[in-house]
Amino acid sequence: MTMPPAAPRTVVLTGGVGGAKLVLGLAQLLPPEKLTAIVNTGDDFIHLGLAISPDIDTLLYTLAGKANAAQGWGREGESWSFMSALRGLGGPDWFQLGDGDLALHVLRTAALAAGRTLSQITADFARAWNIGPAILPMTGARVATMLATDAGELDFQHYFVARRCAPVVRAIRFAGAAEASPGPGVRAAIAQAEAIIIAPSNPYLSIGPILAIPGIAAALAAARAPIVAVSPIVGGQAVKGPTAKLMAELGVPVSNAAIAAQYRPFISALLCDTRDPPADPGIAHAAADTLMHTLEDRVRVARAALALAASLGKSPRP
Amino acid sequence: MTMPPAAPRTVVLTGGVGGAKLVLGLAQLLPPEKLTAIVNTGDDFIHLGLAISPDIDTLLYTLAGKANAAQGWGREGESWSFMSALRGLGGPDWFQLGDGDLALHVLRTAALAAGRTLSQITADFARAWNIGPAILPMTGARVATMLATDAGELDFQHYFVARRCAPVVRAIRFAGAAEASPGPGVRAAIAQAEAIIIAPSNPYLSIGPILAIPGIAAALAAARAPIVAVSPIVGGQAVKGPTAKLMAELGVPVSNAAIAAQYRPFISALLCDTRDPPADPGIAHAAADTLMHTLEDRVRVARAALALAASLGKSPRP
Repeated sequence: MTMPPAAPRTVVLTGGVGGAKLVLGLAQLLPPEKLTAIVNTGDDFIHLGLAISPDIDTLLYTLAGKANAAQGWGREGESWSFMSALRGLGGPDWFQLGDGDLALHVLRTAALAAGRTLSQITADFARAWNIGPAILPMTGARVATMLATDAGELDFQHYFVARRCAPVVRAIRFAGAAEASPGPGVRAAIAQAEAIIIAPSNPYLSIGPILAIPGIAAALAAARAPIVAVSPIVGGQAVKGPTAKLMAELGVPVSNAAIAAQYRPFISALLCDTRDPPADPGIAHAAADTLMHTLEDRVRVARAALALAASLGKSPRP
Repeated sequence: MTMPPAAPRTVVLTGGVGGAKLVLGLAQLLPPEKLTAIVNTGDDFIHLGLAISPDIDTLLYTLAGKANAAQGWGREGESWSFMSALRGLGGPDWFQLGDGDLALHVLRTAALAAGRTLSQITADFARAWNIGPAILPMTGARVATMLATDAGELDFQHYFVARRCAPVVRAIRFAGAAEASPGPGVRAAIAQAEAIIIAPSNPYLSIGPILAIPGIAAALAAARAPIVAVSPIVGGQAVKGPTAKLMAELGVPVSNAAIAAQYRPFISALLCDTRDPPADPGIAHAAADTLMHTLEDRVRVARAALALAASLGKSPRP
């Protein structure tokens, strides 16, 4: 795990679990000051009065080595006394809040009330845990991923957690995105980047909100760096979560061509899994084993994404 | 533990730990619908954005059989993952928040924000835990016990918990009490009571705020029931907490006479410990072993207090 002599300033756009794996891989290859994660906040919500930022917390846990790898979310060694007591009092128990996890939500809520921004609070947490790479919320404004479903319109957590993605999705909107500005540092990181990577998070639910912020879309369009998306498709299926079901419901084939279409006009290239046909010929691509079970897997995918970006150099995007 | 055939409607004014022991004793003797606890909220405060009501919670835990007897506060079998995570993030750790305990604070805060009153929320919690006796907050208004000390003015929690009662107290005030109305049901419970008992809580810090609410003072003055205070003095010392130190700092002798003087003109009689000289001759009294280590102790003291009240009948107070 040697660092390249001239590691590129790298920006990665990411959601939670799947994306965090790639960010962790990138963090093994790049000096911390060269890596910036721009994180989806469209899943953020207020629950029991607490400001919860699931994707940011997943990044924090993952980069701090505190993530529960087996479970795929939350903290390693978490305890659940709060949920048990909450249930005993008849409180809402559809959203799991671990005892240690609560510390982030309570501190964040109190700090927001005291006037600190989500960016500052995230940086505070990262500093407390000695996390080197920058973790930037995509925005400090309220953006909410809303799903029009056969069960009515649901916010992300009520769709994803409370209803376990069961409702059929007709459309997705990002409430507040059109009015939202990029968070502090986001525009500059994109402008200064030498490589921009879109993590294999859900393109519609996790990356979609980031691209829906006009200032981020404009910064990406103006970026000098190549933009490489890592496809979430492996073997004709989405690796995790509701991506494949969602694509079917939205009438999109579960294919790299569909992923490339979703990310057009932003991306320069798509990193596909070796098991799948590449995207349409109009877009550069490379193939790698993109399954990320172990840390070595994550480093391998990160290296392939950086290599694909490096191969594109400063060539203009199509 | 048979119930008397005609148990008196009983109201008990109480703070947290010491008072809760007597309330638990009373709850063994009285049918639940005959017992109402009016609870100090002068120690309530907002910490990390959470609305914390320590004395109400101690009553809830005690009557639900969930109190940590060894520790004297908090929940039995509590875990501390939240505090550990909070400390790791550099959060304030001077006030201990157990993982299960947090459920009450989070639910209470959310319910207050949603427009429910402290009385309603307390009743919700009591119902969830099958607590029979009524637990009534003294008021729904914000009353704060403030201590003028040689270290400046401190609120109760900063004096009691953060500074461990070390500062020398010069004076006590109950900010907001003069403007506060009694909580729902408080006035009616006092008016309908056949016995009113002041628990052996700290007279200055725990009972003082209750008596400082004009509507409660007036209701007590107009009550037809005898009012019996259980003295917190045992063997010339205050049993627990900062009572004796506080009395010395306020220039008051640690004696039943001083307790009687503090509660004049409200009380009809003082229940003293057998080890101590009674109060001055101007006030009725009885003596009992008032130390409450076991449940049997608590029942014994409760029985002695009820017996003293019954002996006074409807005689007018001095």
